[in-house]
Amino acid sequence: MDSGAGGEPTVGEVGEFGLIELIRQGIGTSKHVLIGPGDDAAYLATSDGKVLVSTDLLVENRHFRRDWSSPYEIGRKAAACNLSDINAMGGVATGLTIGFGAPADLPVAWAVDMVRGFEEECSKVGAHIVGGDVTASDLIILAVTALGDAVRPVRRDGALPGDVVAFAGQLGLAGAGFAALSRGFRSPRAAVDAHRIPTPPYAAGPQAANAGATAMTDISDGLLADLGHIAESSGVAIDLTSSAFTLPEPVVTVGEALGADGMAFMLTGGDDYALVATFSSETTLPKGWTRIGVVSDGSGVTVDGKPYEGPAGHQHWR
Amino acid sequence: MDSGAGGEPTVGEVGEFGLIELIRQGIGTSKHVLIGPGDDAAYLATSDGKVLVSTDLLVENRHFRRDWSSPYEIGRKAAACNLSDINAMGGVATGLTIGFGAPADLPVAWAVDMVRGFEEECSKVGAHIVGGDVTASDLIILAVTALGDAVRPVRRDGALPGDVVAFAGQLGLAGAGFAALSRGFRSPRAAVDAHRIPTPPYAAGPQAANAGATAMTDISDGLLADLGHIAESSGVAIDLTSSAFTLPEPVVTVGEALGADGMAFMLTGGDDYALVATFSSETTLPKGWTRIGVVSDGSGVTVDGKPYEGPAGHQHWR
Repeated sequence: MDSGAGGEPTVGEVGEFGLIELIRQGIGTSKHVLIGPGDDAAYLATSDGKVLVSTDLLVENRHFRRDWSSPYEIGRKAAACNLSDINAMGGVATGLTIGFGAPADLPVAWAVDMVRGFEEECSKVGAHIVGGDVTASDLIILAVTALGDAVRPVRRDGALPGDVVAFAGQLGLAGAGFAALSRGFRSPRAAVDAHRIPTPPYAAGPQAANAGATAMTDISDGLLADLGHIAESSGVAIDLTSSAFTLPEPVVTVGEALGADGMAFMLTGGDDYALVATFSSETTLPKGWTRIGVVSDGSGVTVDGKPYEGPAGHQHWR
Repeated sequence: MDSGAGGEPTVGEVGEFGLIELIRQGIGTSKHVLIGPGDDAAYLATSDGKVLVSTDLLVENRHFRRDWSSPYEIGRKAAACNLSDINAMGGVATGLTIGFGAPADLPVAWAVDMVRGFEEECSKVGAHIVGGDVTASDLIILAVTALGDAVRPVRRDGALPGDVVAFAGQLGLAGAGFAALSRGFRSPRAAVDAHRIPTPPYAAGPQAANAGATAMTDISDGLLADLGHIAESSGVAIDLTSSAFTLPEPVVTVGEALGADGMAFMLTGGDDYALVATFSSETTLPKGWTRIGVVSDGSGVTVDGKPYEGPAGHQHWR
């Protein structure tokens, strides 16, 4: 048995089934959930007989840090990055499963607060936790899988020469917040908050799908890196116009404080979970979408006609 | 950069996208897969607009060991335990996602062989890997989520007094194999193999559902522990008849070699992924199902009318 600080009960003390019961108490339900947590599998209704599924594996100290973020914030963010993948297909998430690895000395309250963060983020799209698995591990592990519905899924490989490129949501803030936190700053608040809890534009994905977006993805690795996936899978070139971007004030502030180029946060910062999509040039962009570039024959992603000379996107093991 | 033994390429050397590409080459597809790996989410067809989903989180040295099992065997078993959850609902799996955490010095061939194991096990039910996520981690992590179809999902909470209890599949072999391996034995082969690669009775789940099973679950923690979940959620008592069990020969062998009670492996051994279900006493049990007990008013699980005095089932952190 392990004891938490100040006698707080730990997951080792309540055990597997005690923890599962406490987690379940924090979970709501919806019309999509035909069978919820507690059986061998959950059972979800889909709108049209098809289902989107996306998964993310998050490991403590690589994807989140307990000393930087509260369990509530970690739950919000872990949910957001998965719900964002469904958003990036033009869909709406209906349910999430969580594989939760926890050290025996983790306070039970930490898990309960994390689940509260998950459910809070899920409530933005009407989804709920529908199932999961818990196990002992040395570091916290969060394996999240989201299921969702789409009327018209938008893939990455449909961009056509002549299309315009547009984004929706926040850009640069989370990257600037990460840079600030990394250097020991706790401000500007808007940037630090954006790193802790992203605010994906959940309405924008289905709106872009309805408007006929030809390709779409979410920005998790950085705008240039993620647009690179669209360019490569669509077999096209993409050129961005730097003057089309308005740098948010906190991005400017962090850039000045750290002697960094604010535009780098816009182009290479990850974790904002904005969307970037391509549309036919005749499409009226939905509200909230900003035109930032064009698609043409060729390959690669350029800014103002030139390769961008800045810090590269993130790859694991590199 | 890390170097594998004998110059074998490692996941650190090929990087995130190189690893994903190699994994993708080992993945097949089916009519269920409308959009496969490579986009923000996969897109699957369901038979009737509803979808089963189940998830498991497996961590190296807790759920599997590289020195005990080959990567192919680990992939087979990781797939099997998830496909078994869908089987236990009376369903058939259609697709799997894998969250894969890997140390930088893991040989790429290890991952490729593991994926081969996953696909081989999935082929038994017509499913495929449809998506995933890879990340760096100190130990290997496998977060597996299975999606599936069911004509009539069978829950745990429907057992009624007067029902009979029956099981399908192998029982006791994996537990006996684990006990043998733990004591340094490499035989009997059938038991050791059952621990390394379980053989869930994939036809038996849908057959039991079609036959009208009132409750069902798979045996991952041990027959008594998993029947306990049925008894508790159904609000009934279950009594097993020990004379109804035929001990497989390897179970008898291991019991004799280790001075253990072979019946304990049948009642408390996990990891065989057999099914246990309850049926109305008027039901003709489907082929492959063996009657082992009865359901009555009350609570708890007994053997020959008495509480079983043996080693308890497995709980994490205990």
